[in-house]
Amino acid sequence: MAKPRFEVTTLGTGAALPARGRYPTAQLVHANGGLYLLDCGEGTQERLRNAGTNFMRIGHVFISHLHGDHYLGLMGLISSMHLMGRTAKLHVHGPPDLQPIIDIQLRASQTYLRYPLEFHPIHPTNGAPAWSDERVRVTVLVMRHRLPCTGFLFEEQPAPRPLRKDMAPLIPHFKRSAVKAGEDLLFPDGRIIANAELTHEPPKPRRYAFCSDTAPVPELLEMIAGVDLLYHEATFTEQLARRAKETMHSTAAQAASLALQADVGHLLLGHFSSRYKDAEELLAEARAIFSRTSASEDGATYPVIERTIV
Amino acid sequence: MAKPRFEVTTLGTGAALPARGRYPTAQLVHANGGLYLLDCGEGTQERLRNAGTNFMRIGHVFISHLHGDHYLGLMGLISSMHLMGRTAKLHVHGPPDLQPIIDIQLRASQTYLRYPLEFHPIHPTNGAPAWSDERVRVTVLVMRHRLPCTGFLFEEQPAPRPLRKDMAPLIPHFKRSAVKAGEDLLFPDGRIIANAELTHEPPKPRRYAFCSDTAPVPELLEMIAGVDLLYHEATFTEQLARRAKETMHSTAAQAASLALQADVGHLLLGHFSSRYKDAEELLAEARAIFSRTSASEDGATYPVIERTIV
Repeated sequence: MAKPRFEVTTLGTGAALPARGRYPTAQLVHANGGLYLLDCGEGTQERLRNAGTNFMRIGHVFISHLHGDHYLGLMGLISSMHLMGRTAKLHVHGPPDLQPIIDIQLRASQTYLRYPLEFHPIHPTNGAPAWSDERVRVTVLVMRHRLPCTGFLFEEQPAPRPLRKDMAPLIPHFKRSAVKAGEDLLFPDGRIIANAELTHEPPKPRRYAFCSDTAPVPELLEMIAGVDLLYHEATFTEQLARRAKETMHSTAAQAASLALQADVGHLLLGHFSSRYKDAEELLAEARAIFSRTSASEDGATYPVIERTIV
Repeated sequence: MAKPRFEVTTLGTGAALPARGRYPTAQLVHANGGLYLLDCGEGTQERLRNAGTNFMRIGHVFISHLHGDHYLGLMGLISSMHLMGRTAKLHVHGPPDLQPIIDIQLRASQTYLRYPLEFHPIHPTNGAPAWSDERVRVTVLVMRHRLPCTGFLFEEQPAPRPLRKDMAPLIPHFKRSAVKAGEDLLFPDGRIIANAELTHEPPKPRRYAFCSDTAPVPELLEMIAGVDLLYHEATFTEQLARRAKETMHSTAAQAASLALQADVGHLLLGHFSSRYKDAEELLAEARAIFSRTSASEDGATYPVIERTIV
C-alpha cells in the first residue's frame, strides 16, 4: 500500500536580511492532503502562488517567533484568503503577542473576515501539544533565541494495523476497525484472540522536526531522537561561530552535530545568512559531520522518508 | 542647462489581490537625487532591490491608506534598513493609525532601531502641506475611498531665476543668490533695478500627482489642474462601473475624464484588478477619452516631463 504523502516544501531559505533570490522563512508541510504552513515571511503568498499551491487549502499556520522574517507575510495571506472568498476556518498558532498584531491591523483596514480565524497561543514548553487532527500531531519544541521561539514536531497519526491475511476471515466485519485500532477480539463464548495474532505492526509514523531560529539546544535531543527529517537552521559557518553565538543562531557544524547525536534520518539546512552567495560552504561543513544532509532550496520539496536503520 | 532628474518608478501595478507578475502598490519618486517612496505593499523591498535601488537613500515613505496592499511591506523595509546599519533619519508619513501598528511590531520583535524614525501623521485636508525640503514640496490630496486615504502632489522647488547675460556684470557677486531668488537690486545711491530686468523666468516647477485608491473626486480638479504627470488608479473598465462604485475605485474611463478636465500633461494608470491579464483593455478605454495615457508597468520608470501646451 502506498504511504500517504508527507513532504515539506521550503518556500524560503534566507535569514533576516533577504538576499537576491533567497526568500525569508516559510515552509509548507503536506501531510496526507492536509496543508500546514510553518512561518510566513514577507512575500510567502507569492511563493505559494509560484509553487502552484491553492492556499485556500491551508488549514493551519504555525509561527515560530516574531522576528519579521518569520511572520511579516501573514497579514497579506490572511487578507488574500478573505478577498478570495474563503469560508473555512483558519487556525493560527503563534506567540501570544501575535494576536494583538493581527487584530490591530484588521481593525485599521476595517476588515471583517468572511471566515473564522482561530488564534492558538503557543505555550513554550518542550513536548506541549500544539495541535492534533486525523492526519498529524504537532508538538512544541523550545528554541533558544533572542525572542521566545518554538519549533514544531510533526508526527503522522498511527496508521491502522494491517490485518493478517490468514486471520482476517475470523474477524467479523463490524469488529475490523476496532482490531485495526489495536483491540483484541472477544468472542461471545469467552474466547480471546490477542491483537498481536490478528494484525501486523503498521509502519512507524513518520516524524518531521522544524527547528528555527535557534542556538544549539542539546535538551532537544530526546524530543527529536530518530526523527525521519530534521530541518535545522544553519545561519553561519564555524568561521562565524562567535557571531552565531551573539545572535543566538547555529552554525552548519552545530546543526550537523545535533543531527548526528539525535541519529536522525536526514538533515535539511536553511536560514542562510545573506553573506553566503550559495549554500555550498555551509553544506560541506555539515556533511563533514553528518553525511545525510541537504541544503534547502527555495521552492524545492523534500519527502519525509521513513528512516532506514543501517 | 539640463533639468534635474524628476521621475517615477512604478514598483507595483496590482490591486488588493495580487496577480502573478503584478505587485501591490509602491512607487519610487526620484527628485533631483532625493528618493521618496509612495506606498509600500508587501514585497516592496524586493522590488527595490530588483530595481537596483540603494534603499538606504530613501528619506521619506508616504503611505496613502491602511489597506494591506499599500503598506504591508513597510515593516520589512524598516527592519532591513536597521539590519543594514542605517543611521540617517527615516520619515514616515501616513494615517495616524499607522503609528501604533509600527510600534507594536517593533516592540514584539524587540527591535531598537539604530536610526531615528520620525512619524508624521497625515491630516486629510486638500492642499495641506505634508513635507517640504530643498527638492520638493509635498501636498495632501484627499481621496474618496472606504478608508481615510490621501494622495500626494509632488512639486519641484522653484529653480533659481537665470541671470540675463547682459545684466549679469552689473550684479555684485554677493547679491547674486538674492537676485536669483527674485529680489530686486538696490544700489547704495538709491537706484533700484527690478528683478524682471535682471533675470529670465525660470522653468516652471514640474508637478506629479499620485491618486490611489479612490472613486473619482471632481473636487481635485483645482489641485491637479495642469500637472505634468498624473498617476490615477484605474482598477476596472466601465463594464464593471458598478463594482468600481461599490468598492470606491475608479474605471479607466473615469481616470481619463479627470485627466482631460484637469488638462494634465500625461496620465499614468495603475492598480489594475487581478481579473485583467494585461492592461490593454484598460489603456484602450482611457485613450479613447485622453490620448496622452500610459498603463504603468511593474518596474518601469516614467519621467515627469514639463507639460507642453499644444
